Amino acid sequence: MSLPECSATQLAQLIGPNATNAAAAADFICSQFTAVGNKFVDTQYAVDNTYLLFSAYLVFSMQLGFAMLCAGSVRAKNTMNIMLTNVLDAAAGGLFYYLFGFAFAFGGPSNGFIGKHFFGLKDVPSEAFDYSYFLYQWAFAIAAAGITSGSIAERTQFVAYLIYSSFLTGFVYPVVSHWFWSSDGWASATNTGNLLFSTGVIDFAGSGVVHMVGGIAGLWGALIEGPRIGRFDHNGRAVTLRGHSASLVVLGTFMLWFGWYGFNPGSFTKILSSYESGTYYGQWSAVGRTAVTTTLAGCTAALTTLFGKRILSGHWNVTDVCNGLLGGFAAITAGCSVVEPWAAIVCGFIAAVVLISCNVLAEKVRYDDPLEAAQLHGGCGAWGIIFTALFAKKEYVNQVYPGKPGRPYGLFMGGGGKLLGAHVIQILVIIGWVSATMGPLFFALNKMKLLRISAEDELAGMDLTRHGGFAYAYEDEPHEHGIHLRKVDHNSSSTPTPTTTTDL
Amino acid sequence: MSLPECSATQLAQLIGPNATNAAAAADFICSQFTAVGNKFVDTQYAVDNTYLLFSAYLVFSMQLGFAMLCAGSVRAKNTMNIMLTNVLDAAAGGLFYYLFGFAFAFGGPSNGFIGKHFFGLKDVPSEAFDYSYFLYQWAFAIAAAGITSGSIAERTQFVAYLIYSSFLTGFVYPVVSHWFWSSDGWASATNTGNLLFSTGVIDFAGSGVVHMVGGIAGLWGALIEGPRIGRFDHNGRAVTLRGHSASLVVLGTFMLWFGWYGFNPGSFTKILSSYESGTYYGQWSAVGRTAVTTTLAGCTAALTTLFGKRILSGHWNVTDVCNGLLGGFAAITAGCSVVEPWAAIVCGFIAAVVLISCNVLAEKVRYDDPLEAAQLHGGCGAWGIIFTALFAKKEYVNQVYPGKPGRPYGLFMGGGGKLLGAHVIQILVIIGWVSATMGPLFFALNKMKLLRISAEDELAGMDLTRHGGFAYAYEDEPHEHGIHLRKVDHNSSSTPTPTTTTDL
Amino acid sequence: MSLPECSATQLAQLIGPNATNAAAAADFICSQFTAVGNKFVDTQYAVDNTYLLFSAYLVFSMQLGFAMLCAGSVRAKNTMNIMLTNVLDAAAGGLFYYLFGFAFAFGGPSNGFIGKHFFGLKDVPSEAFDYSYFLYQWAFAIAAAGITSGSIAERTQFVAYLIYSSFLTGFVYPVVSHWFWSSDGWASATNTGNLLFSTGVIDFAGSGVVHMVGGIAGLWGALIEGPRIGRFDHNGRAVTLRGHSASLVVLGTFMLWFGWYGFNPGSFTKILSSYESGTYYGQWSAVGRTAVTTTLAGCTAALTTLFGKRILSGHWNVTDVCNGLLGGFAAITAGCSVVEPWAAIVCGFIAAVVLISCNVLAEKVRYDDPLEAAQLHGGCGAWGIIFTALFAKKEYVNQVYPGKPGRPYGLFMGGGGKLLGAHVIQILVIIGWVSATMGPLFFALNKMKLLRISAEDELAGMDLTRHGGFAYAYEDEPHEHGIHLRKVDHNSSSTPTPTTTTDL
Repeated sequence: MSLPECSATQLAQLIGPNATNAAAAADFICSQFTAVGNKFVDTQYAVDNTYLLFSAYLVFSMQLGFAMLCAGSVRAKNTMNIMLTNVLDAAAGGLFYYLFGFAFAFGGPSNGFIGKHFFGLKDVPSEAFDYSYFLYQWAFAIAAAGITSGSIAERTQFVAYLIYSSFLTGFVYPVVSHWFWSSDGWASATNTGNLLFSTGVIDFAGSGVVHMVGGIAGLWGALIEGPRIGRFDHNGRAVTLRGHSASLVVLGTFMLWFGWYGFNPGSFTKILSSYESGTYYGQWSAVGRTAVTTTLAGCTAALTTLFGKRILSGHWNVTDVCNGLLGGFAAITAGCSVVEPWAAIVCGFIAAVVLISCNVLAEKVRYDDPLEAAQLHGGCGAWGIIFTALFAKKEYVNQVYPGKPGRPYGLFMGGGGKLLGAHVIQILVIIGWVSATMGPLFFALNKMKLLRISAEDELAGMDLTRHGGFAYAYEDEPHEHGIHLRKVDHNSSSTPTPTTTTDL
Repeated sequence: MSLPECSATQLAQLIGPNATNAAAAADFICSQFTAVGNKFVDTQYAVDNTYLLFSAYLVFSMQLGFAMLCAGSVRAKNTMNIMLTNVLDAAAGGLFYYLFGFAFAFGGPSNGFIGKHFFGLKDVPSEAFDYSYFLYQWAFAIAAAGITSGSIAERTQFVAYLIYSSFLTGFVYPVVSHWFWSSDGWASATNTGNLLFSTGVIDFAGSGVVHMVGGIAGLWGALIEGPRIGRFDHNGRAVTLRGHSASLVVLGTFMLWFGWYGFNPGSFTKILSSYESGTYYGQWSAVGRTAVTTTLAGCTAALTTLFGKRILSGHWNVTDVCNGLLGGFAAITAGCSVVEPWAAIVCGFIAAVVLISCNVLAEKVRYDDPLEAAQLHGGCGAWGIIFTALFAKKEYVNQVYPGKPGRPYGLFMGGGGKLLGAHVIQILVIIGWVSATMGPLFFALNKMKLLRISAEDELAGMDLTRHGGFAYAYEDEPHEHGIHLRKVDHNSSSTPTPTTTTDL
Repeated sequence: MSLPECSATQLAQLIGPNATNAAAAADFICSQFTAVGNKFVDTQYAVDNTYLLFSAYLVFSMQLGFAMLCAGSVRAKNTMNIMLTNVLDAAAGGLFYYLFGFAFAFGGPSNGFIGKHFFGLKDVPSEAFDYSYFLYQWAFAIAAAGITSGSIAERTQFVAYLIYSSFLTGFVYPVVSHWFWSSDGWASATNTGNLLFSTGVIDFAGSGVVHMVGGIAGLWGALIEGPRIGRFDHNGRAVTLRGHSASLVVLGTFMLWFGWYGFNPGSFTKILSSYESGTYYGQWSAVGRTAVTTTLAGCTAALTTLFGKRILSGHWNVTDVCNGLLGGFAAITAGCSVVEPWAAIVCGFIAAVVLISCNVLAEKVRYDDPLEAAQLHGGCGAWGIIFTALFAKKEYVNQVYPGKPGRPYGLFMGGGGKLLGAHVIQILVIIGWVSATMGPLFFALNKMKLLRISAEDELAGMDLTRHGGFAYAYEDEPHEHGIHLRKVDHNSSSTPTPTTTTDL
């Protein structure tokens, strides 16, 4: 939004021939306005980039959240393993997304299926994309892989992890984000050509693009490997394999909550855009509203889960509440920017019901997902897509997706069924695409004996057999005084040569 | 602060009748300036909302800090319980504050006692309040409830928690924030009518409104339930019931420190305001100064506590230092924006002395507060209110609370005793109001046997009896290889039906 | 960058004598432009301070990262000790840096060796420095001391820590930062007079100023005290003394990663600066690029370490990967703003090789550094300085260090060897200065028996003997129901008087 053009010709005519030099006077004045306009351009870039960069940092902090949530949710003997996968999501994702993931996702102009520019950030920055945008999208990409690693925790070979994670972050996810978020994407709501069902898919921050993709990928992995040893007893009854630290679960949940304020409101990618210049209501309000809807959906889901699980299990369980909260967030992510705060409460309430139902179903079919990732991100994510198609408000849709007046909006808000149609398509194609890519990959890895660890390793724990040792060492006898010989763990030499037990 | 009006009439007269069309030329020029002015309005909203939103996120991150601080400060057997209360502070607070808390606090125009608009965010955003403001205030509201839950930790029924927490976040706290922060509040320094003692109360970020409210509420709860079993021995001597993890305490403290940069500097709610346009000194400087005073008060209190406790107890104790640090923060919160950095050092020093004294006194009167919350937030908070009345600097008071020249400031800075009078009133009314509301509530809960858990449950720990199990499971025998039957905790079935011990 | 001056005199002449009052018309118009210019000044201060303050908060959050990384990397019995040092780094650093550290570093105009203004923030804010700048630099100063405390962990007296930490934060580090970062510094790339080798040192965010200083200081401390008991066996073979919690290590690493986005991109200290006004490419792009180079260097180093250590040790080790990641960050810190993203990958790859090599060397010479701090921050930091001298790109150097066209840049980029010469000088003088100041200090402390704890204390752990008790208390028998007498740790009285074991 630049200033109106200052036409020196026009102004000179208005001043007229009686002025000493009307043309120069007009030039003088208009060149000042041009300079003012340029400074507004600078200001806008600085403000928007500040906003986007700090949002990206928040989204990145979700990796810390995932790592702690996952660590706390598994048994102590597999902590090193799962934390390593979380660190590597971010690290390997950084390289792959730089080399080709970003190009596949946003490399326009291209076709509707996959992007083809900006490999290795060539030609970035440009008018369309600055480095901050890449960083923001990278932080999203690594979130998807993090979701999947939860589903297959505690029983997957590390090499399998390296393979699927690269494939997911570098190809499967970028293609999906191209479809729904690139202006070239065949189902994007910002497509500059024809919109799918005249609307395109409104998946603002990725209930489908991120959460369902991660969840469905995890579903296939967990289905193909089967449940952890001991997860279902002889009679097929579910046995909870409790995670080793509720403190880490709560820590991770709060970090994810914190980071979600980068994920959802940050998805505007710009904050200095007015809807009508000079008034208090503009994109900054929409950003704030998005933070509010996000908050309310999570809060409602948490409370619903608290009471729901109290009724079902008799306990007030903090880790269940954490998962409920996250389910509410995963659901509101698609529609956070286009619904009213009250609708977010509806969203969160049903998200909790969906999560509880999915978990009941999972136990029924003996599906084991240590982090409930497929249920939470897949199930609540799918609900969020439907929710958006029902509750998206006309005014907000037109503000957030401008330039196409008269576009469809939520069914319950009087906007017709086209958006719902597009969103059902989204759910189906995501399930189809992720199943068609990740399913065969996990199947092949399994056939090649690269997927699941041995029963021995599983019982002993992966940390000891594969990751150099147990994650924790709390000494139980700190009270003994005086110099005496201490036995040193003979598994812990840091040199490749074998070391003997050490005496002083 | 908009641009000076561009009067086309006036300009047209100056150009005069010899120009071809002076009126049109003037209109042309002035309409350009109007567009420029509108863009400045947009820019200001974007910058201020960016500032306020990220500040709100920081304040929210204090919930993570509280949760970890509380978790680490209690015994392992009550960790699930206290973390659940922290998650629910945020979640239940989100709903209650949305439904009516925000309306009670800021719903003007109203009377001096309680607000009455904006229920369920109706009529938000407006010229006065955008969503970001609601989010920021919500993050404050849940902090108060978090403080209280510390005082009554390890012995309170969960249902009591649900009741008092809703009442505090939804009613008691919003009313106090209305009095001191709303422009309608009877004691607010921004009251547009008459100011209390011609000054109103300068409680910038809430040493009284947040910290004393939380602390006094906790005081009543803890007094009414009495100390934890074992906290005082047969002879009445205090026995420390050590928290289970100093690492979580330090983690929580650093997160609170981090979040306090949203709490104190963020309370300006705007950063793009000049005090004299075009110069380097403006509200951005005051924001920075507030961050500096906050830092220095906390640092000084930490060091004072380090050496003070070293002398008293003979140890260099990190958890004591953490509490001292937080006491310094709680104290500087009232005056952070209106005092000099050197004064913040005085504030922190005395805050540490106050905290140590309160703790000595608490042990003398056999008052048990697992988090020292009443001492820290109540005691240091009260000191901070007095401190502000003594050290508030004239220049800063006029900048931060503009529009009323000649208003009183700090007694020691030559500003007379009126501010001190108002601040003594603040302390008294907060004690009175919170005692009159929370005292009877805790008393009634106690009478109805809803407050304290049974001695059996207390000894066994609440996690096991009420929250579905222990927070931690560190396996001690990870070295055993080979498939063998593992005993599974028979308390941990996730289904409501009883499960038997599981064999493979 | 202000607007071009609006010369009313010139404009009046252009309008000419036929206008009714050309001078007044011109004044009218130009005063409007002056007001516009002033508002841009305000806007720029607000945006830049917002950017710098939130960057400072991120850098501060690295203290949390350090604390958790250090805590997890030591044995449980020394956790309280090392966390206390981390809290005090921040707290004592706050006071010392306020009183004189900042003055020594940035107190210009001064000589090239040490600053001499702004003691106790006198004359701040000024045109050059606002409070936000102080806060940012304080967060840097405390990082250096945090690095050193890692090297000497688990065997150093607390009083020695208090002494060296004050000396480092208050004097040694500020002097180095004056040399390389102050516009008066003799080797600064922003020196307004003569530049060292016509270039000065390009140590953008402090691979040398922060990381090498902290690392070399730690090297001397660790060398002088010698290795921990049990670190090398009878035959001199290295024995890993495993840290007690890999979860805390990963937590700390992710927090440091998060905070590094304040450390490196934040070092621009301003974001609203255009390189050519009105275009999309400006300092905001350079800030984003810096975030990207930082990310890529860390990611590459992490992956290199993963595979490198897998080959060397046979394990996929998460704590090694964390250290590799941090080594990549320490290395890219010097050149992050002036290199291409692809070069950052080279930087990270070699940083991992340097770290692995330094660790092999350290074991060979029986050097014990519990956090690998000297290897990581010293070794990788030194590599980062060399790297910058090889890969700094002409265009970026001129944008980030403007006003001196034709200045040298990276050797491999065609910029000649002068920058390399300056950078070799930097490495040498940092080694020399830190050795000349911290070496004698540690030596003297050692002579005075103030440096190393007794062997008894070391075996028992410092927490028990010096810090009031063990950091953790996980109760192992939570299943016992019924009221029975619980033994209370007789070391845990919070009063100075002795307490007896407590019965109910």
